[in-house]
Formats: sequence, C-alpha cells, structure tokens
Amino acid sequence: MVTRDACIARDAADELAALRNSFTLPPNMIYLLGNSLGPLPRSAPAHFQRVVQDEWGAHLIGGWNLSWYDEPTRLGERIARLIGAGPGEVVVADSTSINLMKVVYAAIEQQRSDGRILVGYEAGLFPTDIYVASSVARSVGGSAVALDIVDGELPDLPDGLGAMVLSHVDYRSGRLLGMRALTKQLHDRGVLAIWDLSHSVGALPVQLDDCEADYAVGCTYKYLNAGPGAPAFVFVRDRLLSSTRVLPEGWFAHREPFAMSPSFAASDDIRRLLVGTPSVVACAGLHASLDIFDSTDIAKLRAKSLALTDLFTEVVTATSSDVDVVTPMDPDVRGSHITLRHESAYPIVRALIDRGVVCDFRAPDAMRFGFAPLYLRHVDAYDAAVAVVDVIRSETWRDPRYAMRETVT
Amino acid sequence: MVTRDACIARDAADELAALRNSFTLPPNMIYLLGNSLGPLPRSAPAHFQRVVQDEWGAHLIGGWNLSWYDEPTRLGERIARLIGAGPGEVVVADSTSINLMKVVYAAIEQQRSDGRILVGYEAGLFPTDIYVASSVARSVGGSAVALDIVDGELPDLPDGLGAMVLSHVDYRSGRLLGMRALTKQLHDRGVLAIWDLSHSVGALPVQLDDCEADYAVGCTYKYLNAGPGAPAFVFVRDRLLSSTRVLPEGWFAHREPFAMSPSFAASDDIRRLLVGTPSVVACAGLHASLDIFDSTDIAKLRAKSLALTDLFTEVVTATSSDVDVVTPMDPDVRGSHITLRHESAYPIVRALIDRGVVCDFRAPDAMRFGFAPLYLRHVDAYDAAVAVVDVIRSETWRDPRYAMRETVT
Repeated sequence: MVTRDACIARDAADELAALRNSFTLPPNMIYLLGNSLGPLPRSAPAHFQRVVQDEWGAHLIGGWNLSWYDEPTRLGERIARLIGAGPGEVVVADSTSINLMKVVYAAIEQQRSDGRILVGYEAGLFPTDIYVASSVARSVGGSAVALDIVDGELPDLPDGLGAMVLSHVDYRSGRLLGMRALTKQLHDRGVLAIWDLSHSVGALPVQLDDCEADYAVGCTYKYLNAGPGAPAFVFVRDRLLSSTRVLPEGWFAHREPFAMSPSFAASDDIRRLLVGTPSVVACAGLHASLDIFDSTDIAKLRAKSLALTDLFTEVVTATSSDVDVVTPMDPDVRGSHITLRHESAYPIVRALIDRGVVCDFRAPDAMRFGFAPLYLRHVDAYDAAVAVVDVIRSETWRDPRYAMRETVT
Repeated sequence: MVTRDACIARDAADELAALRNSFTLPPNMIYLLGNSLGPLPRSAPAHFQRVVQDEWGAHLIGGWNLSWYDEPTRLGERIARLIGAGPGEVVVADSTSINLMKVVYAAIEQQRSDGRILVGYEAGLFPTDIYVASSVARSVGGSAVALDIVDGELPDLPDGLGAMVLSHVDYRSGRLLGMRALTKQLHDRGVLAIWDLSHSVGALPVQLDDCEADYAVGCTYKYLNAGPGAPAFVFVRDRLLSSTRVLPEGWFAHREPFAMSPSFAASDDIRRLLVGTPSVVACAGLHASLDIFDSTDIAKLRAKSLALTDLFTEVVTATSSDVDVVTPMDPDVRGSHITLRHESAYPIVRALIDRGVVCDFRAPDAMRFGFAPLYLRHVDAYDAAVAVVDVIRSETWRDPRYAMRETVT
C-alpha cells in the first residue's frame, strides 16, 4: 500500500500543487466538500471590492455602462471553455433550479407539436431537479416520469417522451454517465437531452458540443468556487437557440430591454435565457475562480482527481473491510467524489469533522468525500483515508455527542 | 419662490440630514436615480467582507449552519416592517421577475377552479411585469389582458378575471395608486390583487396587511440600496399561504430540504416561496441598508420625499414653461420621483448628467428625477431644478455630443 511519504513525494512532483495557494483554506482542515461548496479563492475579496466599491460605490447607475450589462454573457463565455461549449451557447444568471425550469419548459415546447409532453428524469436525480422537472411539466399539461439508468444504460423509453433530465455525475454515488452514448440513444428516439453538470463542471472534462447535448445547466458554487448561492449557468445548443422559448419571459431577455416596449421580443442570442436583472455583485467570486481555471488545464485536473480518489479508496479498502465503496472505480464512470456506505455513517461523519476531515452524510447510510483537484494534495487524500479507518476501528463515533443531527447540510 | 439659502436652512433643521453620511456619494454629483439603483451604504463593504471572508472563507460549508440558511426569512422579516406585513409573510430570494412569476402562477392556481384564468395588468406596467404575467398565464392555459387605470379608477373588469398585477408607483410617471381602495374593488369582484412595490418600498409607507393585499413583490436595489441585482422579495398574505402553490417547486421550498426526498412537500411557512439555493453573498448589501432604515421612520421619510419633490417641481415650473410635469402633484397620488416631459428630453438628460445631475430618459420624451429621502438634501433638489431650467434655457443640450444614445439604462 502507498505510504504517507510517497504521497508527500507525489505532491512535491505535482505540477498543479501551487494552485492550492490560490485558495483560503483553514489550517488543520482537510476540506472534502468542494463538491458542495468550494472554498474562497484568495483573489475573490478583491473582486468583490472592485464591484462593490470601485464600481457600485463610485459609478452608481453608471456601472451598467461599465461592464455589468454583459456580465451574464462574459461569464458564460468563460465557462464555455470548461464544458466544451461554443461561443454564444452559455449564460450565467439565476439559480440552477430556475435555469432547469427554463430548459425543461423550452424542451417541452420544442416537442409539443409532436405530442411529446412527457419529461423523463433519472430515478436518482438530485431532488430539486426532480421537483422542477415535475412541477414544470405538470404546469403546462405534461407530466414527468422516473426512468432508472442501470449500468449506464437507458431503460425502454415510454411513448411521448420529449426530453430527459440526466445528471452527468450523480450527487449521491459519484457515478459518471457517458454523455455521448446516452445523448445519442436519446436522439435516436427523438428525445432531447438535458444535462445537469453541477457535480462535474470544474472537476472533469465536459464536451457538450461534441456529445451533441441539447440543453444543460450547472452550479458555480461547487467545483467552480464562486461562493454560496452564486449564479448558475445554462447552456443551449446553438442550433436550438432560435426555437427556444423561455418561461418566464423577462426584460433582460428582450431584444431591446431598455426600449420598454409593452410587447416581448426575444433576443436573437443567448441573452434570451435571461429573465430579470442579474445579480452583479454575486458574479465577482466566479471571476476570481475562473482566473485560476484559466491558468491550468481540465485534462490535468481530471488526472489528478482520479489519482486522489484512487488513493483515498485504496487506503480505506486496504485497511478496513467495514465500509462499502459505492462509487464505481472504473475511471470511465467515476466522478470526483467517493461515497462510502456504513450503517453508522452519520456519527462517523460527525467524528471525522471533529478531526478536521470535512465530509458529509446522505441518509440513510452514505458518507461523501469530494476531491477537488485544484487545491487538494495527495497527502490530504491519504490522511483523510487514515482518519476514516481510524474512526471506524477505534469506534470514537460512538461518543454520544455525535449522535444528534446538528447540521442542516 | 424658495431661495437656495432657504433650502440650506431647511437642511440644517432636517432631523434626517445626518442619514446622508451613511452613504458613499461621489463629490460633485446630485444623484437622482435612487429609484433605479440606490447608492452604496458606507457599512456595506464591511457586510460583504463579513460574508465573504469571515463566513465563507473561514467556515466554508459550515456557513450554512451559521446564518445563511435563514437569510431569506431573516431579511424578509426586516423588510416586512417597511411594507406593513406581518411575521412570516415576506421572504427574500431570486429576482423581482422570478418572484412575480411565482405569485402570478399561484394566483391563477387559486382561481382556476372558478374558471378565472385571466390575469389583468395595468396598461402602463413596467414591461418585464407584463412579459412575466403574460408568459406565465399563457403557459398554463390562461391569458393576460391590459386594463387601463384612469384617475386611479379601475375600468370594467372582464369576466373570468382571476388576478390583477398593479404597480404601487408607476415607474414612468411616478403616479401612486390607492392600494386600499383598488384592492377592495378587486376583492369585491373576486379578483386577487398582486402589487409590485419596486418603486415605492423604502420611499413611502406601504400597508399591505391593512389594505388586504394578496400577493406582492418588490425590488431591493432601488430605494432599498442593496446593490446591483440584489435579491428581491415576495409577500404572501398569511391566509393565502397554505393554498399557495409555487412554480417551479425547488428544494429550498421543501418541508425537509436536506432529507433529499424524491417527492416534493411544500414547507408550511413562507419558505415555500423559495426555489433554489439563495444568493447569500448578494444579501449582504441589504443588511447594510436595512440597518439605516431601522434608525429612522418611514413616515418621516415620506414627509421629506414630498418636500423634495414639491421643491424641485416648484422651482422648475416657476422659472420655465418649457416642460410639462407628468407626475401628479396631489400627495395622495404622488410617488417619490418626478417625471418631466420635453421633446428634447434625451439630450437634456445627457447635458444634465454632464453637469453632475444624474437623472434618466424614458422614450420618447420623458426625464425622471428620483428623490430618495434617505440621502438627498433640499439644496440638492433646488440645485437640480436650477440645472434643468438652465440647460433648457441656455440650450446647452444642442451640443452634438449629447445627441447619441450612449447608455443602456
């Protein structure tokens, strides 16, 4: 088995190692929840200060003529590079849930004339995606149906299916789906593919255009480190844009927003995915984080992510037989977090957090460990694995103070 | 006519005068667009720093256990005081447009069983409100219709009308509607009243509960000074809450968001108006501004707002007959901005901005001057009026550099 010294040597040889200095990481903490909320980039406070003091404070309404108006598309272009999208296919605004509403509605409207008003979703999809898809489909006279994906394969698709919502990486298991093959299978049946990239963007390569994905949404506060509740992004394949209708229609999607016309006319470009005034200040953290991504390469990040999840899993399984590894270890179907199963997962997670190994619990028995390759070291993966084994073996998790549920996340 | 010295004396005697020091206002600028984007509160940078560095930077995911989770309701309670709402009736999240979507959808669903799926809107409503109301109504099988309000009176209401969207203060003319009488007239016809408070909240008293308003939305970046694109608020009358269904349904509206259930169950409280993860960082500016409101009284702010708009209009009209005052001068129907009409409004506005009098243009011939009572002085209203008269009289606006449209707002 790998030794701690070997991990230190790997870190010394790691060409990505210096990127860790781009983040504020508390001492004595191994932060394994970058898949939930990324840490603060060191340059982010200066970006917030620029927008708040130098722009809003000094220019007031004039800020809209400086750079604010184009923030949604400027940030969209920056994210496009990380997800294999082309110019004019991505825009940043609103929450992931709101963006998913826009594209589920758009997909149903695209397919309505063919009577395809049924929306499928992966049975294990992140719950808010299920709620959004179901409520939007129902509101416009359609319906939604759960479809199990087993071993990366679609089930038989029901008649009338117009679109399907899939998560590129499963938030619970860390399983990575084959976007290209699944999208092709859906297209062969005339179904539009809507991908949620929340748990893949920033941790592994995404090739939306190559895979011919139709619509996609994603979160910026996980591996993209843009800050709590930062605006999300939405992708529309270029050839679908002109036929994409958004709900609701709002002034920032208007061809001439400041003409104040009583009738709506959608912008010809990706701005038609906007609705209300975008949250300018909340975008500042995303700029800081994307500057860091611009200094490296997503293929290198992916290689390191796989090395970290390999290492963690190897050390855990080599020294403990008390946990099951839920995440598939085949790199073709593995995301960037590892999920372990143990019947006492909740108190084990609490005990780990007490030791500075920050991970989380998902009912009833899962523990998630996210490995963000931008700032985690090999030695972090090693130490975290040793801590997991030690907490289980020593039964420190039986301490009564770990029994209560104190956290909301 | 009032003299400049008299204005200086009024400022010296003004018990609200010191509040001006709570804002960052550029020198040599009279800022009359607080109705569009309020200025930076001096304490706002420290609030942003607290959230970004002290909370996100130091606590990472643990921030959700500090205060973030309750930000939407905590800020809702703070805004409730300014709009005459009770506990549990207001929540802060998303944009004004998205919030309007939620309540228009909710209102249609409330009325659907009576066949009332028609949504009325004021003919002169802010365009995005028209777009939202129309697109949402259409998407669920209803429709929307413009209804003229003349002299504050509703027209004959069409059969099947289920809800009406009204703006408390008209963004263009500055006209204030009688919320109590109009809401009652709508209720007498079985119609729900949805109020947009964007141009009244923070500048004049709003009494949602006393007026028995059903739903309301409002912006926080105008008179509430929360920063560009800051999250908006939404109000639901307590007795309607349990029957209010929101589109889309999202995890932050769930009774147990972190139980990750595949089925949606709406929260019993105002959190059911949430959708996705709220924009935590973007809320910081609103706390800063509400601290200032907490130190004063909305009735005093209203009295000063009326004094400022009186003063400005008096000086303009006493010394120039070249402009028409669009805003009604009866205090019962006057908001907090003054709209003047002149056929060369566009170049006049450009010339005024060049002189440091920041106002805006609304096609084809309107100039808007917002009077935020928190930070404007009587002498500002006087000097702005003198500048308007001087630019028109001297014809400096004929300078060719004022002819081009350079601004997006």
